Amino acid sequence: MGGDKVAMGGVKISGKKLHCFINKTLIKAGARKDVAGYVSGGLIQTSLRGVDSHGVRLLPHYIASMKAGRINPDPKYRFRKTSFSTGTLDGDHTFGHAAGMEAARKAVELARKSGTGHVAVCNSTHFGAAAYYSLEIAKHDMIGLSFTHADSLMKTYAGKRAFLGTNPISFTAPIQGEGPLCLDMATTLYNFNKVKQLREHGLDAPEGVGADEGGFDTTDPHKISMLLPIGGYKGYGLSLMVEVLCGILTGMPYGPHISSMFKAPLSQKRFLGHFICAIKIDCFQDKKVFKKRMAALVRELRREPSIEKGRQVQVAGDPEKKTFARRMKEGIPLSAAEFEDFNRLSDEYGVKLEIISD
Amino acid sequence: MGGDKVAMGGVKISGKKLHCFINKTLIKAGARKDVAGYVSGGLIQTSLRGVDSHGVRLLPHYIASMKAGRINPDPKYRFRKTSFSTGTLDGDHTFGHAAGMEAARKAVELARKSGTGHVAVCNSTHFGAAAYYSLEIAKHDMIGLSFTHADSLMKTYAGKRAFLGTNPISFTAPIQGEGPLCLDMATTLYNFNKVKQLREHGLDAPEGVGADEGGFDTTDPHKISMLLPIGGYKGYGLSLMVEVLCGILTGMPYGPHISSMFKAPLSQKRFLGHFICAIKIDCFQDKKVFKKRMAALVRELRREPSIEKGRQVQVAGDPEKKTFARRMKEGIPLSAAEFEDFNRLSDEYGVKLEIISD
Repeated sequence: MGGDKVAMGGVKISGKKLHCFINKTLIKAGARKDVAGYVSGGLIQTSLRGVDSHGVRLLPHYIASMKAGRINPDPKYRFRKTSFSTGTLDGDHTFGHAAGMEAARKAVELARKSGTGHVAVCNSTHFGAAAYYSLEIAKHDMIGLSFTHADSLMKTYAGKRAFLGTNPISFTAPIQGEGPLCLDMATTLYNFNKVKQLREHGLDAPEGVGADEGGFDTTDPHKISMLLPIGGYKGYGLSLMVEVLCGILTGMPYGPHISSMFKAPLSQKRFLGHFICAIKIDCFQDKKVFKKRMAALVRELRREPSIEKGRQVQVAGDPEKKTFARRMKEGIPLSAAEFEDFNRLSDEYGVKLEIISD
Repeated sequence: MGGDKVAMGGVKISGKKLHCFINKTLIKAGARKDVAGYVSGGLIQTSLRGVDSHGVRLLPHYIASMKAGRINPDPKYRFRKTSFSTGTLDGDHTFGHAAGMEAARKAVELARKSGTGHVAVCNSTHFGAAAYYSLEIAKHDMIGLSFTHADSLMKTYAGKRAFLGTNPISFTAPIQGEGPLCLDMATTLYNFNKVKQLREHGLDAPEGVGADEGGFDTTDPHKISMLLPIGGYKGYGLSLMVEVLCGILTGMPYGPHISSMFKAPLSQKRFLGHFICAIKIDCFQDKKVFKKRMAALVRELRREPSIEKGRQVQVAGDPEKKTFARRMKEGIPLSAAEFEDFNRLSDEYGVKLEIISD
């Protein structure tokens, strides 16, 4: 499986120490303790799982957004239980990680008493990886679902422009003897970060990844300005489903009315919505039987003959489990630029940053 | 938009009259009245919406399955409410349409009182188009979701064989002033019926549709023996999610342990599972506001500039709405072979079949 290669000037930092650094830095920068805990927990888990696009590298952006006024470091959440199995959470413009995790916990509470829990979150911001919330729900031996909308970046099927975002779907289910099954996918084939990586490495994009400014398919990553939905109208339909749950049902703006994460002024609030669900397994089947059957299902799939020698059939979340195990031992890699950003934060807030290797 | 072309020997039959014919034939063949109502309603709605692969053409197969013992024409449903928002329904091996619709109604009932309703169905059979159930829920101004698993036909990502089925996802949401948004999609790019159509017309399949017996991608429809998931591991992950909800959570068999719809003896029960959810909109947002915002969302999307002249950007369910309107006027087209099958049933059960045109 091979370790993470650390580029010139890059380093590896122990997950535990980086967690501590991020948490302290957020608090020093003004975030409330519980809020900082949610954000640092989410960023570290995401980087440990290898989802670097949504991991610790976003910390400088989040801190800048907090300083500029987009993100509220000291929110007054307003949770309203609206039925036995539903609730709404006003995130008061805090970090999406904090609003999302509050919602996941409320969903679990509702599900414990009423079989399922569904929480619609409004007035939130970027919540990082959707898996952070569905994995939290799976910890309680429940099935978890989490969704968020995002700014306009997916080319509309049969259209010329972007309208909907890469609107991700995450689904988790517990498995006996190992961590949960965990699907976390954008409804586009690639995210934009992957396109940037192709640009940096001088590689072409596969077919089906992107379109140019005119809306025409291109494999030149420098020309890609929009991302294509998986399966044409199907991925476009799934993205629309997520928009209905996160944009329409929450009362938040939708599609092109959502402000850009990076291009809008950092003082501007984003008014994002999320939708989070917990399903209590016992209401359908004995939890132990369910988890045993899940174990049998994934075992059978992993034993399926592979199309390539040396490659194994995997299930959702397997690559992330492997990376998690490795990075727990070896640490989280930071690029030279990321390390520089972190050192700047270390100086600014007087929090020590210890590296493992360089 | 153009009418349906009727092939040599084919006919068009009025939806209303065909509905009546199917209903009466099912009853004469032994189905209980309420069961026949569910099946005929589902088949007609599906054909009117243009989803011919899952429409009236399946009637002869269903009747043969009932005669042979696979399908129970007089089921004793066992519904168990397991929490405020959940329940399980044992379909007693009746038609999937009947079990699915009973479940959809139970889900609506639960949601009315508890905000959401989730019903897991076991001991069912093929339920036709997933949209039949989610559209029923949308009639009650709720958000509807329906899922079913199916026999092994999707090539496992990175694998050589099929394990999971084309496991569809349907999602509906009401819109002010028109029928609901309706997504109903297999998690493969094509269904097998579409591959058969390519064979008949001597056309190649696009890339990304199918693989041959060895598991290698092919565009030759005659060589396609498995279907590819949309977006590679993403569609495979979505199919697995559906399997967890419909196979694992319901206690039914999964993947390759599900018997084939057409290849297994028609006397053999199928033990299929479905998962059906209803979400009460008022628990999150004023229903009127929601429906108005849905109308604005789809209006904006439909006004997006199109990539091709003469083509319009659509949203999930638009093509089916157009076909529905047309077929309500012009009738449902039957191929020569289908018409022959229907005439045979007409003779066998003494139910008159009136055509519009030939």
